[in-house]
Amino acid sequence: MQFVVIGGDAAGMSAASRAKRNKPDMDVIVLEQTADVSYSACGMPYNIADPDREMDDLVVRQAQVFREKQGIDLRTGHRAERIDLEAKTVSGRNSEGDGFEMAYDKLLIATGASPMIPSLPGFDLPGVMGLKSLEDGRRIKRFIDDHHVKKVAIIGMGYIALEMAEALRGRDIQVAMVKPRPILLPWMNPNLSETVREELESNDVTLHLGHEVKAIQDIEGGLQVVCDDLNLDAQMVLVAIGVTPNSGIAEQAGLELGIQKAISVDRSLRTSNEHVYSAGDCADAYHVVTGQKAWIPLALRANRGGWAVADNILGKGVSLEGIAGTAVFKVFDLQVARTGLSVKEAEEAGFDPVEVDIKARTRAHAHPGSSAMGVQMVGDKKSGLLLGVQMVGREGAAHRIDAPAVALHAKMTVEAFSQCDLAYAPPFSPTWDPMLTTANQLLKRL
Amino acid sequence: MQFVVIGGDAAGMSAASRAKRNKPDMDVIVLEQTADVSYSACGMPYNIADPDREMDDLVVRQAQVFREKQGIDLRTGHRAERIDLEAKTVSGRNSEGDGFEMAYDKLLIATGASPMIPSLPGFDLPGVMGLKSLEDGRRIKRFIDDHHVKKVAIIGMGYIALEMAEALRGRDIQVAMVKPRPILLPWMNPNLSETVREELESNDVTLHLGHEVKAIQDIEGGLQVVCDDLNLDAQMVLVAIGVTPNSGIAEQAGLELGIQKAISVDRSLRTSNEHVYSAGDCADAYHVVTGQKAWIPLALRANRGGWAVADNILGKGVSLEGIAGTAVFKVFDLQVARTGLSVKEAEEAGFDPVEVDIKARTRAHAHPGSSAMGVQMVGDKKSGLLLGVQMVGREGAAHRIDAPAVALHAKMTVEAFSQCDLAYAPPFSPTWDPMLTTANQLLKRL
Repeated sequence: MQFVVIGGDAAGMSAASRAKRNKPDMDVIVLEQTADVSYSACGMPYNIADPDREMDDLVVRQAQVFREKQGIDLRTGHRAERIDLEAKTVSGRNSEGDGFEMAYDKLLIATGASPMIPSLPGFDLPGVMGLKSLEDGRRIKRFIDDHHVKKVAIIGMGYIALEMAEALRGRDIQVAMVKPRPILLPWMNPNLSETVREELESNDVTLHLGHEVKAIQDIEGGLQVVCDDLNLDAQMVLVAIGVTPNSGIAEQAGLELGIQKAISVDRSLRTSNEHVYSAGDCADAYHVVTGQKAWIPLALRANRGGWAVADNILGKGVSLEGIAGTAVFKVFDLQVARTGLSVKEAEEAGFDPVEVDIKARTRAHAHPGSSAMGVQMVGDKKSGLLLGVQMVGREGAAHRIDAPAVALHAKMTVEAFSQCDLAYAPPFSPTWDPMLTTANQLLKRL
Repeated sequence: MQFVVIGGDAAGMSAASRAKRNKPDMDVIVLEQTADVSYSACGMPYNIADPDREMDDLVVRQAQVFREKQGIDLRTGHRAERIDLEAKTVSGRNSEGDGFEMAYDKLLIATGASPMIPSLPGFDLPGVMGLKSLEDGRRIKRFIDDHHVKKVAIIGMGYIALEMAEALRGRDIQVAMVKPRPILLPWMNPNLSETVREELESNDVTLHLGHEVKAIQDIEGGLQVVCDDLNLDAQMVLVAIGVTPNSGIAEQAGLELGIQKAISVDRSLRTSNEHVYSAGDCADAYHVVTGQKAWIPLALRANRGGWAVADNILGKGVSLEGIAGTAVFKVFDLQVARTGLSVKEAEEAGFDPVEVDIKARTRAHAHPGSSAMGVQMVGDKKSGLLLGVQMVGREGAAHRIDAPAVALHAKMTVEAFSQCDLAYAPPFSPTWDPMLTTANQLLKRL
């Protein structure tokens, strides 16, 4: 059997490695358009924060390990451009400009996602950067060094934008952020996002909310982000307004696309063609709370999807339950975490959501080192089901969020969650964990 | 209605407060034999660690608040000695030596637990201490100050013993620990408990395992713990070999006792007499994994039980699901956590347990500040059910344990748990959280 994989990052290399390990006589070919495979993209902001670290530290496994130790036919610098579903072939072009074409028995499209860059004047100027590939990371780091960058404008305020703000402040670079919408983190409970805003501002990050960006222009000594009523001067501009799935090659081949133009897959990661799978940031998934399709491109799902594809082409019949939308990020000293649905998302999915948010302490009464923690919880008035949780705090939010994430997979009610026997010791939480206190409050409104 | 509560700590005061809040015209009388009510007993080791803190910092709510603001008839220095189930009365003696007797419509026995002190020579000498009540804590602290204690022997190596070892080392007091069994933490996977042993030893705590204590004797300048082949000299001896439920008054009244002589209660916290409830450390509970009775005296359960009793005497029909045996403690820089069953406990409960343990990193590949984390997981070969998890690490164990705790309440299989969408960001975990890696490994053996 010939198993061809388009894309050599998380989903692609997970699938290739697992397929080859479980069936060593399978021909496994990976086509990767860049020179990089299997790296920790999520680690880039932290790497950029440290001038002494090489970007290549983020490579989890070297290409030669895949080739020599694992026996994977890994072809870097190979860009797949066309899939012929009838003939079962992939064709494209390598970095020398030579065309190639190869047959597959099973195909995995793991092309990932790309940063969105608006079609506005000046977004192609040198010094305007996106951040998705390792090469993007190297470029940013090199640009900071070469131009002795001391001032950056960031367009967008999503989690990558916020992580980059922290990374750049860590290098003592001035950071101004701008976005058109007037709300910092629209999915977040306002009392919780207020804490994030305070943390950014107390670290001297300037926030410009509600400013539509019109253009970027070259000015003496750098760049200028031009808005209606605001001009931001900077030496470098980071565009972090979100990512879009790399589904063009799938669409062109006639495969079905789903939500937000991600490649539509079933629970076995199969596309609308029985021989073609898709996994990672280019593919959609089922949401365990809504039962509907969602596109939330995150790393765990990519790795898990890659494994499931490998298992399924070997006939194991793996079916993935789906995602709960669990995510966490760090903003300076804050941990910001969520799982499940926001109130708005719950309404859109047809629930009758009720939310509460509380402020609690991270440690027991009278225990030193305690700090404030915000917890929000959403439940469904009709069914009593737990729908989502958000948290923000200086400690303990990042791992606490896994508890309600498990509860969402188990389709627990808020009441059942409130009965859970959670851990308590004075250095780690109050006797009633903040999550239980929130559940107890929410129960009164359900 | 007259609601009488015996015992003024977590369970008792939770019940009294909630009953009075929800039904202000109810007569609520609390009989507490000591002068202290409503304090954070779990905080005592951390308070003892700090010579500048008053033990009374641990009082969560003052007696006068209960009396004046909440209208609870709180009688401190009142020791209940006898319950007459027929006459529905409680009688006893107050600290002045005067007898009292009062009638109840509903009674809550919340007498807690006491440290076990063996009936061996010398355990009644001055300087031999247990730690359960706030008065115990004050006595220990006073003794350390008055005798300029620089050397302590601790008998026992349970979590209170270990927390006290850390507390005393924090005051630069030499600590030697001794216990008869040859294993440090018998419920723990040996690879994980080895990490705890190393942590204790690297903090200069001397461990003497497998030494039966025969007596304590007075020697020049202090005390001596006498074992078969070992004598430990110390100025103070802490006895921390476990606690036993204060169920004597219940037994004497003819109420049914259960496991480990704890007061037997149903899921509504009712004893074998319909007008008498019991909650907190003196009562047993159902274990959600085994469905059987268990006695695991911990603070969250006491508070939750107190609330449930208040709700039930008001006719709300609350039924508690039970406990998962979730617990966490800190030993120097280590977080040690568990939920559910150990392999041995699982065998005893009739399961066919399989376990794995792994060493993982607490943060992502190449992320600075990462450390090792040990995770053990137990599953049932017959049903595939998750049965228990143990963890030890320098960060992230204390709150991570809540995720498998929720899974135990939901009666999840290991496979279902392995599919959960857990949080990932480089500062907080690898892409595959250590818990998921452990679940994936365990799945191969189930």
